[in-house]
Amino acid sequence: MAAVPVWSVDPRTGKRREQVAVEATAEEVDTAVRAAHAARGALADRAVRSAFLRTAAAGLEAARDGLIETADAETALGPVRLTGELARTGYQLRAFADIVDEGAFLDVVINHPDDTATPPIPDLRRYKVPLGVVAVYCASNFPFAFSVAGGDTASALAAGCPVVVKAHPDHPALSELVAKVLRRAAAEHGIPEGVVGLVHGFRAGIDLIEHPSVAAAGFTGSIRGGRALFDAAAARPVPIPFHGELGSLNPVLVTQAAAAERGEAIGVGLAGSMTLGVGQFCVKPGLVLVPSGAAGDGLVKALTDAVSDTEAGVLLDHRMRDDFIAGVAERAKLPDVDSPVTPGAGGEHSVSAGFLAVPAARLAEEGAYDQLLEECFGPVTVVARYADEDEAAGVLSRLPGNLTATVQLSAEEAAGQGRGAELLAELTPLAGRVVVNAWPTGVAVAPAQHHGGPYPATTSTSTSVGGTAIERWLRPVAYQNAPAALLPVELTDENPLGLPRRFNGVLER
Amino acid sequence: MAAVPVWSVDPRTGKRREQVAVEATAEEVDTAVRAAHAARGALADRAVRSAFLRTAAAGLEAARDGLIETADAETALGPVRLTGELARTGYQLRAFADIVDEGAFLDVVINHPDDTATPPIPDLRRYKVPLGVVAVYCASNFPFAFSVAGGDTASALAAGCPVVVKAHPDHPALSELVAKVLRRAAAEHGIPEGVVGLVHGFRAGIDLIEHPSVAAAGFTGSIRGGRALFDAAAARPVPIPFHGELGSLNPVLVTQAAAAERGEAIGVGLAGSMTLGVGQFCVKPGLVLVPSGAAGDGLVKALTDAVSDTEAGVLLDHRMRDDFIAGVAERAKLPDVDSPVTPGAGGEHSVSAGFLAVPAARLAEEGAYDQLLEECFGPVTVVARYADEDEAAGVLSRLPGNLTATVQLSAEEAAGQGRGAELLAELTPLAGRVVVNAWPTGVAVAPAQHHGGPYPATTSTSTSVGGTAIERWLRPVAYQNAPAALLPVELTDENPLGLPRRFNGVLER
Repeated sequence: MAAVPVWSVDPRTGKRREQVAVEATAEEVDTAVRAAHAARGALADRAVRSAFLRTAAAGLEAARDGLIETADAETALGPVRLTGELARTGYQLRAFADIVDEGAFLDVVINHPDDTATPPIPDLRRYKVPLGVVAVYCASNFPFAFSVAGGDTASALAAGCPVVVKAHPDHPALSELVAKVLRRAAAEHGIPEGVVGLVHGFRAGIDLIEHPSVAAAGFTGSIRGGRALFDAAAARPVPIPFHGELGSLNPVLVTQAAAAERGEAIGVGLAGSMTLGVGQFCVKPGLVLVPSGAAGDGLVKALTDAVSDTEAGVLLDHRMRDDFIAGVAERAKLPDVDSPVTPGAGGEHSVSAGFLAVPAARLAEEGAYDQLLEECFGPVTVVARYADEDEAAGVLSRLPGNLTATVQLSAEEAAGQGRGAELLAELTPLAGRVVVNAWPTGVAVAPAQHHGGPYPATTSTSTSVGGTAIERWLRPVAYQNAPAALLPVELTDENPLGLPRRFNGVLER
Repeated sequence: MAAVPVWSVDPRTGKRREQVAVEATAEEVDTAVRAAHAARGALADRAVRSAFLRTAAAGLEAARDGLIETADAETALGPVRLTGELARTGYQLRAFADIVDEGAFLDVVINHPDDTATPPIPDLRRYKVPLGVVAVYCASNFPFAFSVAGGDTASALAAGCPVVVKAHPDHPALSELVAKVLRRAAAEHGIPEGVVGLVHGFRAGIDLIEHPSVAAAGFTGSIRGGRALFDAAAARPVPIPFHGELGSLNPVLVTQAAAAERGEAIGVGLAGSMTLGVGQFCVKPGLVLVPSGAAGDGLVKALTDAVSDTEAGVLLDHRMRDDFIAGVAERAKLPDVDSPVTPGAGGEHSVSAGFLAVPAARLAEEGAYDQLLEECFGPVTVVARYADEDEAAGVLSRLPGNLTATVQLSAEEAAGQGRGAELLAELTPLAGRVVVNAWPTGVAVAPAQHHGGPYPATTSTSTSVGGTAIERWLRPVAYQNAPAALLPVELTDENPLGLPRRFNGVLER
């Protein structure tokens, strides 16, 4: 079989920039996984892991100019955004280095023998160990932060798991450059370069999920692609955890009081959030419930003005541009759907932002309008005008799972007068993150972050951003009656590493 | 369609005791799930939950004599074992009540805004919320501790999740009695009785896993049944977590030094562990690597004597008896397989314990001997005699995942001289619990317990025993920029409930 070339393409022109690689064969995927598997032992020492992560962060920063130039040429995301994203990626690697050093993620629990329990408790000591090789599937829309050196890779390496990364076809040249930085950082700490494998090609992604030595996977992308890989992971002779972030509508509810109090500011804020990064964020607000009536009209007017002022932008690739143009056209032609600002084709290679408006009553029942409740990647949102609270609640009750749900409240409602707390409780079942009087775009890297949500937002209950993302790549193991001389140092009574732990029932920090 | 009767059967005679119920129709499953779903709100208050769990424990104890009589009549496990198991079940309910009260399982993480982070961190507060209705599939072999009021139910209720239990056909009458105790306890605390649903029937079990309002499932049983339900859970339009404990061989490695030092004691201990509960424990040692030579011979001699002295026992049902008799007969007729004590049919309704012996070299490669590496439910184990360490390691490397792996060391090895630590490290990838100089049977209910392991031991990285079992039924949610007046009390700065938490990076306990 002839080798299939992998091209780097400039989305601003649709032209090929260079041939970066060839698609990996099954044998090459196998070689990459075996090399990663063989590198496990080199990650066993936590001090080595955290030093490796910090060196990787420094390496990315040292290579910044070249990385950003290549990233911009392949994604058209622009140097400002990409510079920020690269800084975020370095911050994230260092945050996981700190987490490795602290060691709370090991979840150490120690029980001395207790004959008063039913049945009696023997000496039991539990902590978490790495799962093994993790397959990482890169996102189109975050060439740094959710790709080769992104959150999945950082958290997997932090957990002690080597990775084999499936590059995204929208930025193959950058993927190669970033992988080199990671491998050079590994080598500096005596870790085999195979600790970070990189493969290209659709078929390679399937071969990867089916490889017997792959122990878990992380994915950021579409519902269709993610579900296919999830199904493959579940169908293996030995099923493996598949942590996929697939799709999200990210509903926003604007209360009547909020629209009356600051409708214009909300309209302007919404325009900024939905067009940020040319609408290519997984947390883009895709459905906004706005009250009918004058206050809501004012909000929509402000939104109209702000979106009209937005410049055309280039999407990550031409397939996305085609899908966006077709998707908004199909939605716009539904009866009773208006386009106060018509989204669609911009220039030959770009798209222009816009939004659709529809009476919320149209979304109350299954039918043709359901496509308005499906994510549409790109700079568009749907404004649904509701007559009363029940109508808004009715639409929310029809939504699949989301990464985020946002509510815009008035000052009084935020202060506890009115239905604020009730609305927070109503939004909680819908999403993994509930945002109040702010916008969902912008996902901070923080211990309290949760970037996940009910399916299809994610395929598991885990997060792909924030400190607890490390939990995805670990499994507990308990040692029973193990003599002190044989215990891993993390599990000894003396606790020379000062690990946070639960010791005979007491939380020690 | 005619109603399908559900019979309670006495395994000591094979005779029907009484008709307990009829198999649930799809409509009845739906009714049970809806009732459970409607009861969610009544579990929202943690104080109510823990009180309910304690009342349930007391209720089981108050009903003890009747419960044990029925359990014994349906399972033939005997009043001594059943009395212990019921005590364990009450202890477990109370342990989860304590966990609910402590609140560490909420995993509260709070971040105040931090503009020095990249990107800046807004106010973010995360904790865990219940997933929703949990489907619980009862085990044949633990009519109390892994059934209607067992660990899955206790941990799900503790997490705030109502349950619908699929009864095991080996103890339907007991299942009804236990469900009544739980419902009475619920009613005492103002919780609708639908919080604990109970259904009978194979088809009902499938309808249950496919019900849109079922949010997760817990299962203890066979590889075949568990995998079928796992596949159904993964194939749903909205896949759900399936925490199944399926099967485990539970290998034991006896070192040469251990055999030389205390071979007789090990042989006697092994006999006790493998015949305990008529060999019907999921952690029964099913493969024992014993050195060839005189020391190993002594161990086998002691095992032979002890197993020969074991009385015939009654298995949980006649299908199991048939499978056991056929399974050991097929294994025993392989060339080079000896039966120092022949397992098989005991009396008309019972089986007799025994064990098989085989050169470890026979297990080194794929082939007919692979059936010796598969779990055989009942009082039998396989002793594989190894010539050297490499041969033993070769057999271990061929095993699928296990709940437990055990090593028997000499006193010197246990003290750190020799390969003890190395062997612990070699056994760790095989299992969720590594046991040293003890036996895997007996699974303590303890914070440090881990009852799970690589597939097929479990279908996830979770445990079904011990405090962390509650984690299976929760998902995190983060609140961003939520005003203090609207926050759940668990997430306020003031922490009036005194919850353990991570507050601006610092672990507070």
